[in-house]
Amino acid sequence: MTMANKYRFFLFRSTQQVLRCLYSRRAVPSINHIYSTKPSLPPNSLAWAYNISRSCSTYSSGQSSFSLRSHTCGELCSSHVDEEVTLCGWIQYLRQDLFVILRDFSGLVQILIPQDESKSELKNAFLGLTVESVIMVKGRVRCRPEGQENKKMSTGEIEVCAESMEVLNTCRKLPFEIKEFVKKSEALRMQYRYLDLRSPRMQYNLRLRSQMVMKMREYLCNLHRFVDVETPTLFKRTPGGAKEFVVPSGDPGKFYSLPQSPQQFKQLLMVAGIDRYFQLARCYRDEGSKPDRQPEFTQVDIEISFVDQAGVMSLIEGLVHYSWPEDKGQINVPFPSMTYEEAIRDYGVDKPDTRFGMKLVDVTTAFQESQIEFIKDALLKPSGCIQAICVPEGTVRTESGDSHSYEVSVVPVRADGSLKSPLSRLLSDTAKQQLLQMAQANAGDLIFITAGPRENVRPLLGKLRLQCVELLESYGVPVRDPSVFHFLWVVDFPLFLPKEDNPEMLEAAHHPFTAPVPEDAHLLYTQPRKVRGQHYDLVLNGCEVGGGSIRIHNASQQLYVLDTILKEDPSLLSHLLEALDSGAPPHGGIALGLDRLVSIIVGAPSIRDIIAFPKSFRGHDLMSRAPDFVSEEDLKPYHISVVWPSADIEGQQDNSV
Amino acid sequence: MTMANKYRFFLFRSTQQVLRCLYSRRAVPSINHIYSTKPSLPPNSLAWAYNISRSCSTYSSGQSSFSLRSHTCGELCSSHVDEEVTLCGWIQYLRQDLFVILRDFSGLVQILIPQDESKSELKNAFLGLTVESVIMVKGRVRCRPEGQENKKMSTGEIEVCAESMEVLNTCRKLPFEIKEFVKKSEALRMQYRYLDLRSPRMQYNLRLRSQMVMKMREYLCNLHRFVDVETPTLFKRTPGGAKEFVVPSGDPGKFYSLPQSPQQFKQLLMVAGIDRYFQLARCYRDEGSKPDRQPEFTQVDIEISFVDQAGVMSLIEGLVHYSWPEDKGQINVPFPSMTYEEAIRDYGVDKPDTRFGMKLVDVTTAFQESQIEFIKDALLKPSGCIQAICVPEGTVRTESGDSHSYEVSVVPVRADGSLKSPLSRLLSDTAKQQLLQMAQANAGDLIFITAGPRENVRPLLGKLRLQCVELLESYGVPVRDPSVFHFLWVVDFPLFLPKEDNPEMLEAAHHPFTAPVPEDAHLLYTQPRKVRGQHYDLVLNGCEVGGGSIRIHNASQQLYVLDTILKEDPSLLSHLLEALDSGAPPHGGIALGLDRLVSIIVGAPSIRDIIAFPKSFRGHDLMSRAPDFVSEEDLKPYHISVVWPSADIEGQQDNSV
Repeated sequence: MTMANKYRFFLFRSTQQVLRCLYSRRAVPSINHIYSTKPSLPPNSLAWAYNISRSCSTYSSGQSSFSLRSHTCGELCSSHVDEEVTLCGWIQYLRQDLFVILRDFSGLVQILIPQDESKSELKNAFLGLTVESVIMVKGRVRCRPEGQENKKMSTGEIEVCAESMEVLNTCRKLPFEIKEFVKKSEALRMQYRYLDLRSPRMQYNLRLRSQMVMKMREYLCNLHRFVDVETPTLFKRTPGGAKEFVVPSGDPGKFYSLPQSPQQFKQLLMVAGIDRYFQLARCYRDEGSKPDRQPEFTQVDIEISFVDQAGVMSLIEGLVHYSWPEDKGQINVPFPSMTYEEAIRDYGVDKPDTRFGMKLVDVTTAFQESQIEFIKDALLKPSGCIQAICVPEGTVRTESGDSHSYEVSVVPVRADGSLKSPLSRLLSDTAKQQLLQMAQANAGDLIFITAGPRENVRPLLGKLRLQCVELLESYGVPVRDPSVFHFLWVVDFPLFLPKEDNPEMLEAAHHPFTAPVPEDAHLLYTQPRKVRGQHYDLVLNGCEVGGGSIRIHNASQQLYVLDTILKEDPSLLSHLLEALDSGAPPHGGIALGLDRLVSIIVGAPSIRDIIAFPKSFRGHDLMSRAPDFVSEEDLKPYHISVVWPSADIEGQQDNSV
Repeated sequence: MTMANKYRFFLFRSTQQVLRCLYSRRAVPSINHIYSTKPSLPPNSLAWAYNISRSCSTYSSGQSSFSLRSHTCGELCSSHVDEEVTLCGWIQYLRQDLFVILRDFSGLVQILIPQDESKSELKNAFLGLTVESVIMVKGRVRCRPEGQENKKMSTGEIEVCAESMEVLNTCRKLPFEIKEFVKKSEALRMQYRYLDLRSPRMQYNLRLRSQMVMKMREYLCNLHRFVDVETPTLFKRTPGGAKEFVVPSGDPGKFYSLPQSPQQFKQLLMVAGIDRYFQLARCYRDEGSKPDRQPEFTQVDIEISFVDQAGVMSLIEGLVHYSWPEDKGQINVPFPSMTYEEAIRDYGVDKPDTRFGMKLVDVTTAFQESQIEFIKDALLKPSGCIQAICVPEGTVRTESGDSHSYEVSVVPVRADGSLKSPLSRLLSDTAKQQLLQMAQANAGDLIFITAGPRENVRPLLGKLRLQCVELLESYGVPVRDPSVFHFLWVVDFPLFLPKEDNPEMLEAAHHPFTAPVPEDAHLLYTQPRKVRGQHYDLVLNGCEVGGGSIRIHNASQQLYVLDTILKEDPSLLSHLLEALDSGAPPHGGIALGLDRLVSIIVGAPSIRDIIAFPKSFRGHDLMSRAPDFVSEEDLKPYHISVVWPSADIEGQQDNSV
């Protein structure tokens, strides 16, 4: 026993001092000490519990292999009674000078502090510990005395009688306690992410993500012989890639670009005969401060040759089914499927949340004879219509929001079936009956009606539908079951859309490599706006979690789309066009947004909760303070210099996260 | 049958025309056609061979699941005789108007072109094909007629009698043929990488890499419960990280940095209680044009809590053993181990190639009495010594290279055992005998002798040893068995080394987070140059394929190393120091260089041969021409502008790859 130990010993001899130390969370001296009731243990040797010989040629497996511990805290149960165990973990609680609750990733276990006079040294060592310090304990498992079992604790039937203890590290006073019930601000959680990740919730999220990914790999690689190929992230700026980060190179004026997806590479791999490719691909997008987006994110990237749309969809259904976490219940395959046209018609959005009804209804015919001015006006315009959604039992307080550019009429249905609305006296009884019937409205329901061009009315009601359900749920009306997962395919998207800033021009609805639906291919050359693409989106609970397509594999068709239809400079994609002309097989693929998918599965409010070290919504790492300044000297090799904004612009910068 | 088909038909009715077309490799019309002897097949439907119903809830597995094909080309054998198969692939050869050799990733198969008059349409369609065009063939497997089997071909016992054929895509004249025997320049291979990857060798390399990685994941994730955690690649510049790419952010003057490894994150994950972390991590290093380096590369990144050095080494031995490719023979674990001191002493290098002997021998005593001037001079200097290597049968022509700053004497040993060297007459007979004995030299051997300070002499002889063996092998003298894999651990590295430009200062031998060997820890505060680190390097056949260490987990020790010993600004790592002070468990880890490891296993001359889309040694992508110019307009959001070098510097830029 060294002097240091003796000294420390003395420090904590009185209970008062121990308490004071605990209260102030003053760190204990940070040299490792072993406090043991067995005199034979050598100090300062982490290997004393190490039970795997380097000379054996077969290795044990499991969560404690190669480790100083023999068991994890959370795995102990009554079947371990009388076993000698070695545990490593963090001090969760110190209770009544009698118990230490030890935590590791697997859970909690109660350690009994010996109370004999002969073991006072060990007892005092325990009492000197601060919360979140790291120790190794050797002891024997026993059943808790009758009546002292803790049913709420998975290890609540047993406890470990400590025989020796080594302090592996001490813990300073932390900025927040590692307890689920302690509320922390998002900024504090991010600044001390390494503490935040100790919470059971974050441990669960990251471990579930890892396991799902492993199952996906087994499915793709082992079951279906896909090849995991890594593609470069230092690439070339894609045409119009305004959201791509640039990386200066050593060649003056030349930059790499961090790609938004491996789209070109996956197609080139098909031309290369890789046949079935997948990658958990890191992707980059500079979207400034869009909420719940990350500058880097991960997609499950898949491409397959000699396949059609139904093949890719079946592959993905099998993938999701195979990798689905056991504790989240069964999901059924195949997933239902809906055309883009149907989705917009019934839900006003291309990623409908099908966990509830409240579909859009066209009630134009009920208003055909109406003399109401704004209705008449609306119906006179091209594609003018009257549409409605009916909110069952929606007469609880509902706000329709002020953000709509088209007028929305709220029509509550009274208990007697009559309409409580100024509209009521302007409509004939027949029209009212017709409206109620078309909207399938009952007493107590609420009908939202709006008039205008179809392309405006539908998205408006689509948004309103989601706002309504959120409002209902905020008032405690259960609409969507949080344990239910509704997967849905949306198919038959238009291949091109009018450009927002110039509707005469077309842009690719998804990307310019999507193949047309075979029946529509001939329309490419005559009516490109009517062409549907072989594109498919995977929607989960109203969120897009994946999208893909069968690609154009014919060089001249690809050239026609790029050059003639989209008016893009084909020379920027000359390598891809050349590749298609070099024996490209028919191919298609998909990318799943892993972060979004996992966050929905675990029910996380943000994708930041399933990423170990996310950026803030302004793209900052609050822990390491990235991005950071770089000296002009360090920028020289890249031939760039900073263009500082003028003072008034700089003044607009704020320090929000 | 459409007009287009009839027309095309006509085009190829004469053999001469077919030949002319083949000769000119003129592309056939690029609309897909089906040429069938069965009239019922609908044209333009890729799905006709699609045999997986979307309505079934269980899915088939294997390399042809979800595919238009029923089998791969390479899997067919005599057990498939009489089966109806659908194959998709590339035209490898057209032979004598009778056969087509079809290729996919799995191999080659012979397709028999029907010769009946009734099937002339199908025959002509085959004859119109260009090499590397993509087709789908339906047909029946049959045994080849007796005597026509091809033993060299894995499918050489059978052939497929074509019944119908669909042209899926045509192929232009390619810049090089897809045949192993056709030599291509590296630049051409890189420019048309998607063609280069079609070669069996590249297919093998990428598929072996994928399979090894999958096995590694199984071992880590399934067998040992490691958690696969993704860490950010948009990070903060590390102190002294001169080789890190910068990524301008939207905040003026602030940059992300692409990290050289996830070192900080993996340690923070241990503080976070993740317990066992791994990741196939993309890493970045801007090393300009160093040969066989890539600006982005992949490491198998591992960190584990509550472990010691022996534990990590056992873990890695198990990992390599488990993931080792079957066709590369057995490897034995545990791997042998050597201290840094022993490696330098015996091999003159810290990553010895132990596949052959020719170790360094200290022959100082043989020269103790020598009056040779340069020998006497050398021995007078501090750590002066005479060292030698003996090259068995080395009297074949050997060049010692001119790059050595210390004089090397080449001493061939004659058949009669005498030394053929000017040294011979300057040495006593006893000394000569002693020299021969110490060097274990026999007649025909060659002895290299050099004198000088030990720290110079050893690396010099170490390099010479490798040059000798390469020279011997280039003369056809087999020294190293190419099918043998020698793994070796090198341990007990010094923790600090004198800085090259200022030997009074110390720098971390590996990185500042490596923990000292426990017995040496007290020397940190007194004689830091004598401290050995708990660092371990994994060496394979003389190449470093991995390195790791047990880390410092004590905040004050880490601060002392950074601040007092290395004189680095600790504020740049304040988040890590704070984390260590927050209950950091003892932990350690390793990173394996995946690219290098796989390239040695497959025997590739360069890591470019096991990377799908590598950069040239100047960091260029020759296919897409990345990096590329970016307009000043596109740089504006990042607040940077290009600093163009003056004209004379620009003149030095060349276009080499």
